[in-house]
Amino acid sequence: MERRTGADLPPLNGVDLDTVRLLMASIERNPENAAMSWRAHVRWDGGLRSTARVRQFAPLPSDEPEAIGGSDTAPNPVEQLLAALGNCFVVGYAMNASVRGIEIRELSVEVEGDLDLDVFMGLRDGDAGFTAIRARVHLVADADDDATGDLHRVVFGASPVGHTLANPVAISVELV
Amino acid sequence: MERRTGADLPPLNGVDLDTVRLLMASIERNPENAAMSWRAHVRWDGGLRSTARVRQFAPLPSDEPEAIGGSDTAPNPVEQLLAALGNCFVVGYAMNASVRGIEIRELSVEVEGDLDLDVFMGLRDGDAGFTAIRARVHLVADADDDATGDLHRVVFGASPVGHTLANPVAISVELV
Repeated sequence: MERRTGADLPPLNGVDLDTVRLLMASIERNPENAAMSWRAHVRWDGGLRSTARVRQFAPLPSDEPEAIGGSDTAPNPVEQLLAALGNCFVVGYAMNASVRGIEIRELSVEVEGDLDLDVFMGLRDGDAGFTAIRARVHLVADADDDATGDLHRVVFGASPVGHTLANPVAISVELV
Repeated sequence: MERRTGADLPPLNGVDLDTVRLLMASIERNPENAAMSWRAHVRWDGGLRSTARVRQFAPLPSDEPEAIGGSDTAPNPVEQLLAALGNCFVVGYAMNASVRGIEIRELSVEVEGDLDLDVFMGLRDGDAGFTAIRARVHLVADADDDATGDLHRVVFGASPVGHTLANPVAISVELV
């Protein structure tokens, strides 16, 4: 599979390929450079409302619908999770299409997930999480079917949020 | 374990317990009422930027740091995932503390996760997701150690986002 890794690449899809190439070279030179840690700080705001802070960005509000006892002022955590998955797929398409020289014209992702609220409400033991997640991808790109099919496979085969949901992850908790 | 499920409960921690009680009764009467679906719609905005829309709320922006080829205008998808987890833990504390008659004075959660970027960048096959996630919970509540310990167990044992990350979830994709 051809990669656009030559010098002085013009931006494609608005992605800074020179930076991507530098990062890839840095990781190839020293695999430890691939290791990254990410953080979020969440503070309770009363009721079922909270605010998440990530680096220097504007605080992200969270709440629950009124039917669940909240005040419905913001997306709830499971909706935020689905949004994160859709955003991650989009990054995967934009990044991998650009590296392959494919121009994206339109791209959107609808994400939907099912869960049973009874475990969260303490009415039943079991899995409180999503039992199924469905994504619908709309992509219009300047590429033939083979190249588009390869792009789909690469995106879904290497999505950080997708893999975090599809595979079990150890979560440790410390009380401070 | 005692539950505050009597009639006309006053709000505690700002949580509408009457509504919570109605929802629990509705699910106990008809378990199918526990089934819920949630959605997010994501649109690519050029570069590694996108916008997620959830119901009637303000669009949520997403981007990647400049070192990854983005323009660093918003939290990236994996940071959003950690924020969703922290927000979900907070909802769990607020909901379960209120049902148990525990008043929360302070509550915050720091969430941190590690991942290797080489799989996402196409340099290695494997798991592109978080390899470990750590949460640090700061809780000051009007409860003895037994009640607080019970609260911790209930929250981490029934977190929708926590369980979605800790357990494998099937993600299906449709190209439209």
